Amino acid sequence: MSGNTFGHLFAVTNFGESHGPAIGCVIDGCPPGMELSEADIQTDLDRRRPGTSRHVTQRNEPDAVQILSGVYQGRTTGTPIALLIQNTDQRSKDYGNILETFRPGHADYTYFQKYGIRDPRGGGRSSARLTAPMVAAGAVAKKWLKERFGTEFRGCMTQVGDVPIGFESWDHVPHNPFFAPVTDVAALEDYMDALRKAGDSCGARIRVSASNVPVGLGEPLFDKMDADIAYAMMGINAVKGVEIGAGFASVAQRGTTHGDSLTPAGFASNNAGGVLGGISTGQDLEVSIAIKPTSSIITPRDSIDSAGNPTQVVTKGRHDPCVGIRATPIAEAMLALVVMDHVLRHRAQCGDVVHTLPPIPASR
Amino acid sequence: MSGNTFGHLFAVTNFGESHGPAIGCVIDGCPPGMELSEADIQTDLDRRRPGTSRHVTQRNEPDAVQILSGVYQGRTTGTPIALLIQNTDQRSKDYGNILETFRPGHADYTYFQKYGIRDPRGGGRSSARLTAPMVAAGAVAKKWLKERFGTEFRGCMTQVGDVPIGFESWDHVPHNPFFAPVTDVAALEDYMDALRKAGDSCGARIRVSASNVPVGLGEPLFDKMDADIAYAMMGINAVKGVEIGAGFASVAQRGTTHGDSLTPAGFASNNAGGVLGGISTGQDLEVSIAIKPTSSIITPRDSIDSAGNPTQVVTKGRHDPCVGIRATPIAEAMLALVVMDHVLRHRAQCGDVVHTLPPIPASR
Amino acid sequence: MSGNTFGHLFAVTNFGESHGPAIGCVIDGCPPGMELSEADIQTDLDRRRPGTSRHVTQRNEPDAVQILSGVYQGRTTGTPIALLIQNTDQRSKDYGNILETFRPGHADYTYFQKYGIRDPRGGGRSSARLTAPMVAAGAVAKKWLKERFGTEFRGCMTQVGDVPIGFESWDHVPHNPFFAPVTDVAALEDYMDALRKAGDSCGARIRVSASNVPVGLGEPLFDKMDADIAYAMMGINAVKGVEIGAGFASVAQRGTTHGDSLTPAGFASNNAGGVLGGISTGQDLEVSIAIKPTSSIITPRDSIDSAGNPTQVVTKGRHDPCVGIRATPIAEAMLALVVMDHVLRHRAQCGDVVHTLPPIPASR
Amino acid sequence: MSGNTFGHLFAVTNFGESHGPAIGCVIDGCPPGMELSEADIQTDLDRRRPGTSRHVTQRNEPDAVQILSGVYQGRTTGTPIALLIQNTDQRSKDYGNILETFRPGHADYTYFQKYGIRDPRGGGRSSARLTAPMVAAGAVAKKWLKERFGTEFRGCMTQVGDVPIGFESWDHVPHNPFFAPVTDVAALEDYMDALRKAGDSCGARIRVSASNVPVGLGEPLFDKMDADIAYAMMGINAVKGVEIGAGFASVAQRGTTHGDSLTPAGFASNNAGGVLGGISTGQDLEVSIAIKPTSSIITPRDSIDSAGNPTQVVTKGRHDPCVGIRATPIAEAMLALVVMDHVLRHRAQCGDVVHTLPPIPASR
Repeated sequence: MSGNTFGHLFAVTNFGESHGPAIGCVIDGCPPGMELSEADIQTDLDRRRPGTSRHVTQRNEPDAVQILSGVYQGRTTGTPIALLIQNTDQRSKDYGNILETFRPGHADYTYFQKYGIRDPRGGGRSSARLTAPMVAAGAVAKKWLKERFGTEFRGCMTQVGDVPIGFESWDHVPHNPFFAPVTDVAALEDYMDALRKAGDSCGARIRVSASNVPVGLGEPLFDKMDADIAYAMMGINAVKGVEIGAGFASVAQRGTTHGDSLTPAGFASNNAGGVLGGISTGQDLEVSIAIKPTSSIITPRDSIDSAGNPTQVVTKGRHDPCVGIRATPIAEAMLALVVMDHVLRHRAQCGDVVHTLPPIPASR
Repeated sequence: MSGNTFGHLFAVTNFGESHGPAIGCVIDGCPPGMELSEADIQTDLDRRRPGTSRHVTQRNEPDAVQILSGVYQGRTTGTPIALLIQNTDQRSKDYGNILETFRPGHADYTYFQKYGIRDPRGGGRSSARLTAPMVAAGAVAKKWLKERFGTEFRGCMTQVGDVPIGFESWDHVPHNPFFAPVTDVAALEDYMDALRKAGDSCGARIRVSASNVPVGLGEPLFDKMDADIAYAMMGINAVKGVEIGAGFASVAQRGTTHGDSLTPAGFASNNAGGVLGGISTGQDLEVSIAIKPTSSIITPRDSIDSAGNPTQVVTKGRHDPCVGIRATPIAEAMLALVVMDHVLRHRAQCGDVVHTLPPIPASR
Repeated sequence: MSGNTFGHLFAVTNFGESHGPAIGCVIDGCPPGMELSEADIQTDLDRRRPGTSRHVTQRNEPDAVQILSGVYQGRTTGTPIALLIQNTDQRSKDYGNILETFRPGHADYTYFQKYGIRDPRGGGRSSARLTAPMVAAGAVAKKWLKERFGTEFRGCMTQVGDVPIGFESWDHVPHNPFFAPVTDVAALEDYMDALRKAGDSCGARIRVSASNVPVGLGEPLFDKMDADIAYAMMGINAVKGVEIGAGFASVAQRGTTHGDSLTPAGFASNNAGGVLGGISTGQDLEVSIAIKPTSSIITPRDSIDSAGNPTQVVTKGRHDPCVGIRATPIAEAMLALVVMDHVLRHRAQCGDVVHTLPPIPASR
Repeated sequence: MSGNTFGHLFAVTNFGESHGPAIGCVIDGCPPGMELSEADIQTDLDRRRPGTSRHVTQRNEPDAVQILSGVYQGRTTGTPIALLIQNTDQRSKDYGNILETFRPGHADYTYFQKYGIRDPRGGGRSSARLTAPMVAAGAVAKKWLKERFGTEFRGCMTQVGDVPIGFESWDHVPHNPFFAPVTDVAALEDYMDALRKAGDSCGARIRVSASNVPVGLGEPLFDKMDADIAYAMMGINAVKGVEIGAGFASVAQRGTTHGDSLTPAGFASNNAGGVLGGISTGQDLEVSIAIKPTSSIITPRDSIDSAGNPTQVVTKGRHDPCVGIRATPIAEAMLALVVMDHVLRHRAQCGDVVHTLPPIPASR
């Protein structure tokens, strides 16, 4: 109830602080019998890892994951899977006057007000570092969904600051440090270099997508598939907006164009983003999220200290000038966790799905 | 787990179908000792009620609420509050060929695939009529929060179709059928009249806001205040996008402008929309949602029937040409339910809040 | 979280007070497609109904159940099933000085201390009348389990006061007002008549059993099948003890006799009561519960009033001299709800069970 | 939902297997600001530790606990507290033919049927070793409750096999290996020595008690204090029965004697065991549990192998001949976790308790 467990039937309990001895999670509810090793998880962790380009934080963490339980002779047993990631490159001294002041736009202030105490080292619990265990848990969900339904999760950056990024192909995403679906990222690199020199930070827009999602996932009133996706995405650090399918563009659409026609060969379009009435249509899930600029910047900002007096705060240390850059694998993982949870929920009430009608296509 | 309960500590379990004998909800967790009568709830129900202008569905429902339990001698006792609303104006015959076909953009298709059976009368469980019990439950939460903290919830329409609506004053909202914060709604009326004649529907954009929200509400990792707001809003029928504070505009912002400065007199701005690190800052909560066009329109659309054969579907009966028009009180109610739940969660772990620092202002 | 919902995946939310306008429940998570009518539910309600013999309360309630939602054309749709039972024979005047005093052994005192307010009419929320909606919900679970697995739930009284009741046959249970598995209940009738004349009350011991329970139900650590049964049974009004299988007798047993041998033809005995390591063995679930004497008696008892002053309390009105008499159908219903919930939980994580080994027999 | 998390607001997620690299838990919901170190937890772990007398398993585990998160500068921060205990003395070879057979009375069979795969090393997940993290979590709860309300948890053995143990004083409990409240344990030692020589095992009966428990804890219908205690206790390995207060003895009591009179000086007796209507009275919580004989014994037993063929099974390796001996600190911990969870639940709905009446006494 204190908000550190994600999911209901595939439930991931996250623990740790940015500069504590270790971070990790416990996955409860994983179906038994799936082959699983650390290597299956490490791949996605490496995609999210800091220090991999000059555009992200230079903190050097191998983020090597260890499976502590729930796997026997290389297969999941149905019991909790505990995953542990040691913190190895904490430098708590970098945090200068943050201990006594509050960064504008940062959780410093609210944690202090909520708990009356906060671990300020590296942002403590509010650090984006805590997304690493979710990426690890997401890798387990992805593997099961892939084997079972062929479900695939993909993400890419579609805008950085005020620079929109066109879509050329998913194939380009792994080949540049931005997760951009284009071949030429020179403009993005220049933009980021200038930003870093200016001691400033910027926002980003990310698209995440899932294909081969079973029809019929999601609950009727509150735990709608799209509601749970919105919850998952808005819970990622720095996210300020979430869209499904046509999103905010649907405001200006007419009913005659927005509603996706059904044909015997499948849906003719995907304004719905793969969800109708909160339940998956079987089309691709299409999600877009807005990420705000990093609050930890070296440009001095007006603030107050913990006694309430005015001061200025400057954040030294190692930070991402655009947290959106590393957000793609995180958003994919969260989407996978939502889909996984809903597959198990669906099985509980309705048994294994038997689809009675063909329609699906469009958008893949 | 089947998604019909909203909230954790102030938990609202919703039941009913559009054309069944009754709809309602059970509120579990309401603090004891609060004065409560049907009249306290009816006011908000009346704001959401159908049939109040020519721009909404002409179904005539008094939506009179009855308290079945949880109140003794005019005060809440701490036990479940069951609220019942009789359905009185069902006309199930209006639904022509919907019984055997699927409306493009509607939950018809997904319910059928999920359950293998669906109640098609008036949209059954997927009808927006099921938001009525939430408005009722929200009224209970609003009352408690108002008495305890002076919290106020307000909403207004900010765009209908492609017509943006400026903001003049909250005072105008109750005086026009659109919940528009302006005095002159002639253009909106013309727009809606033309749309209705064209047999089409349109989307809308709604803003919801809460003031006098305690600082420190929300959980650190997953049940963040903004994540839960996104979940609540995306769960409202037809919503396709949610923003908190600067929302999607934050993508193009710089860290130097986005982060709200703290001063001894309070925050200097509210790009955060009242939430930092998932925890309320004490500033106004600011939320914006996108609502898609109604899928039930009289213009013929391509679809398939339940045997998978191509057909055309025309929706007769009484429908809202813009479901967004009645969405304002619904969005307010859902926001109130989120805040209420988080107040109780906060009390559980941290006890009653004692704020140690003054900052709050800006935006009220 | 306020304890009015039973179960997780087959979740029953109960509401109402003894003398309010109505009581009822909402079942969330029922699988779709099952035939269901009020008649399916009424049978069990009639078994629990007051006023059916001189040995139970003379309150005359038809306990007629109405299905408000979740059923379309005689089949469950997968959406919430709301069940309503009107209260028709409240006589709130009977409660004399209970309004201002606390009955020894009754929840009067604790409700007052917890909430600072209580509905004293008929015991309010603490009345055993609130088990009626559970019996109704249990009937839905029983029906589904019967159709799916042939599961049967049976209960009987095994002791009343200090009079033990032998076991002759399940067949006798419906033919006497005690749910006793014997033909001759004259001694029980005499015992109860004497007790009533003495203005006193007594306890009872009840056995509940389930056969044709699937193997493999229950979770490994906390939501063990036996833990959830203990929770369900101890939650029934007036229950003070719960045993599974050999129960307290197992304290004096040796490992060589207690552990049930496995043979190719099945288990050789059932000391386990159908549960090993918290997971069902497929043998009969065997449960025994202790029910304390009713606290509402006409013999004067020492107590205090709500100002803390000494007083005497006498309970007039209509009460069961032995609440255990009507407990049998309640205990059966609660056991059915536990099994049902675990079937759905099992399906979620492990899919539909494929048993790989024959052993089961013994004890049926 | 897979049953590895205990509690709702003070939620403990347990992970690990008997012979895996480590076991542990994550506590979510601990109030912030409490001083906490490993030493606070180690004391109770040492009481439960194996290898401390000849009457328990000779597995030699230091059970040294490490705090991985949730504590900053010696104080809890309100974020998850992860506790890790390394397994150091696994000897997986000891398990002979257990890999392919099922011990009578053991979870071997049910785990295999449920999951289709099981970790047989040391009982895997079904090992009583997994109670260690609960003892650790219970120590955190105990500390908070002690500081806040002066609540104390105590337990003792009241019967071993067919040998009843009288009650002399709580003071004797720490001074013998049986947690017996007597000075002379020679008879118990002889009994256990004979049992071990016979290659057999026996059951035990344990009493647990809590004093200075706040009045008003527990929920009205399902999460009653006694129901949650029954759930917690029946979830401990090998427990087959649970009693609250007078327990099964209440069956033969009359209402005139069972109901505890209230006087201005407090309750006159405690048949209720500290709970009325599911809500704590403020008197001592009194609980008694039955523990069955260990199923792992060296005497050959009839069983089947995983192909369903008849065989005999002999359990070599290191086992407790009476698991009840080490159960006392476990039962205390589970009781503490139940009380802690209910304190937080009570605060959520009702705020901090203000007791309005004096009665409490009796039984301390």
